[in-house]
Amino acid sequence: MSSRSESEVLEAIERRRRRPHYKLLEEHVTLSHGAGGKATHALVETIFARAFDNPLLAPLADAALLAVEGGRLAFSTDASVVTPRFFPGGDIGELSVNGTVNDLAVSGARPLWLSAAFVLEEGLAIAEVVRIAESMAAAARRAGVTIVAGDTKVVERGKADGLYIATTGVGVVPDGLELGPGAIRPGDRVICSGPIGDHGIAIMVARGGLDLEVDLESDTAPVHELAAGLLAAAPGAVRCMRDPTRGGLATVLNELALAAEVAIVLDESALPVRAEVTGACEILGLDPLYVACEGRLAAVVAPAACDAALAALRAVALGEDAGVVGEVRAEPPGMVVLETAFGGSRVVDMLAGDPLPRIC
Amino acid sequence: MSSRSESEVLEAIERRRRRPHYKLLEEHVTLSHGAGGKATHALVETIFARAFDNPLLAPLADAALLAVEGGRLAFSTDASVVTPRFFPGGDIGELSVNGTVNDLAVSGARPLWLSAAFVLEEGLAIAEVVRIAESMAAAARRAGVTIVAGDTKVVERGKADGLYIATTGVGVVPDGLELGPGAIRPGDRVICSGPIGDHGIAIMVARGGLDLEVDLESDTAPVHELAAGLLAAAPGAVRCMRDPTRGGLATVLNELALAAEVAIVLDESALPVRAEVTGACEILGLDPLYVACEGRLAAVVAPAACDAALAALRAVALGEDAGVVGEVRAEPPGMVVLETAFGGSRVVDMLAGDPLPRIC
Repeated sequence: MSSRSESEVLEAIERRRRRPHYKLLEEHVTLSHGAGGKATHALVETIFARAFDNPLLAPLADAALLAVEGGRLAFSTDASVVTPRFFPGGDIGELSVNGTVNDLAVSGARPLWLSAAFVLEEGLAIAEVVRIAESMAAAARRAGVTIVAGDTKVVERGKADGLYIATTGVGVVPDGLELGPGAIRPGDRVICSGPIGDHGIAIMVARGGLDLEVDLESDTAPVHELAAGLLAAAPGAVRCMRDPTRGGLATVLNELALAAEVAIVLDESALPVRAEVTGACEILGLDPLYVACEGRLAAVVAPAACDAALAALRAVALGEDAGVVGEVRAEPPGMVVLETAFGGSRVVDMLAGDPLPRIC
Repeated sequence: MSSRSESEVLEAIERRRRRPHYKLLEEHVTLSHGAGGKATHALVETIFARAFDNPLLAPLADAALLAVEGGRLAFSTDASVVTPRFFPGGDIGELSVNGTVNDLAVSGARPLWLSAAFVLEEGLAIAEVVRIAESMAAAARRAGVTIVAGDTKVVERGKADGLYIATTGVGVVPDGLELGPGAIRPGDRVICSGPIGDHGIAIMVARGGLDLEVDLESDTAPVHELAAGLLAAAPGAVRCMRDPTRGGLATVLNELALAAEVAIVLDESALPVRAEVTGACEILGLDPLYVACEGRLAAVVAPAACDAALAALRAVALGEDAGVVGEVRAEPPGMVVLETAFGGSRVVDMLAGDPLPRIC
């Protein structure tokens, strides 16, 4: 999957070395940094090209060239607008990389390449841009992807909120792998790789003003190892995977139930929720089922493969708390139902309204 | 290059048909439209999925699956923040699609697939979102690409400027095609496909307040046919192509001169500039060489292939005014020099500062 001949790579690196040595003199982002001229080059060369350094990005051409074998690619995009930009457990840069990596991973792909488009607000501290770029680079390394293309625009003071990042990813889907809600059957098990709602609550707490003292970090993480482990351990038995971000587990399971025309029945006592999240949700009037995760994987697997699937998830540190949270039934089709600890049951609809704005 | 079996496509369409029929009741964007729940689904299904309708997008899954043959892909991203959103000759939606199509095309690729990530401002009229989505769909059809993946976020009133769009594209590069500044040699000709600066000046005029009455439209257009025609007419003789957007022709030629360590000498009398652009530039104190185009192609070609290259560009309506604007010399390396109509010459540096903020 390398993309250029060795001589081409060396040539690109050599060309870069011979380029004028750009210096970034400003301490804050200015409109000139988005104009496409000298200041833009200085910003890109001294921050992004340095942090994301790799031979595919090095030419800084109009497009990166990726060498692929024939087959299927997964292609996914995310806009990240989380506020605050830095929060316990992560920041907007790490979140943007993990978010796209996870969309590719739950599609069954091996994530390989990312692009990043930045909308920076005039006046943003350059030190913040550096910190975020380095955080993205670290997240990319952890997930085994390279950031090979980018764009930087600047808008006037007040016209953005620090910065927004759009990440887009390409991954390779193994031959023969077919995932999707169409494969879901009554009797299948629903698995979740870890506690739900950490990210959403960590963001709410980080915003302050809630008078909550909760020691909680975002769960932002790449789930590619979880996904790969699951697919390897239960070949042919994984029906479908999702990462329960905005709208939480409730919303992605509703999407699956609707698409597959099945019922998904959740067992309340089996839902993994940290005490801190339960407590904060009670105070905030939220249901953890609707609170975003950014490093969890939900999967529907055939019942016979359930134990192998759980073992595979638990073999990865990120999945050590994996468990079965529900099962698929034929009736009522298109619905998610929660069976409560007291023996009752209630319908869990898709998220309505927006109790947690701008969490990703 | 089709991506799913016919039965899969039919199944996806049928599943979509069976989905709940979402209705969009609001007249303006609300934070709920970005929350990932019911309102987001309604927005995506009723506007974006309808406007961009195609089998790859239809599943609305985490990632689109693209079938490729082995080889090289081009991968490019753009953030579009142009203001105003609607301007003579185009709008932010059309511009965002053409911008990414053009980055792929000048890399030698056949543009195939696009993703679109939206940051919408709370309060934006839904009618505007519809109009922009339809404009993107029309631009995609014109360029022969499909929009196969997307994301939608909403930020609070005042935290964006209507909307920003990040588009990312994937195209296929023909086997054996090698383009890049490394191939540029002294004696090569520099070709431009049409008048420069139309887009930048059209935007400045559209903003009003300039007391200029100029009847000028943006040149936003896809250059994929120009690029393909050029490559077919002058096989092996096209060294490098660029689209002179932000920073204008001066900036992209500076990039090439630096990367190739050659001089590029422009002939002022041969530079294609409309009278309206010249006039506006004089009033605004701008040099058309630094004003963005969004539908032009600049190419460096071997001298022997120059006539064939020009004929190929002129055979496409968008390229009927194509002409030679300069040539490559050995000295002074890394510089762009303009030979004026009066027999003098001056150095044309890369754009400094930002005379034209947010033109793309």
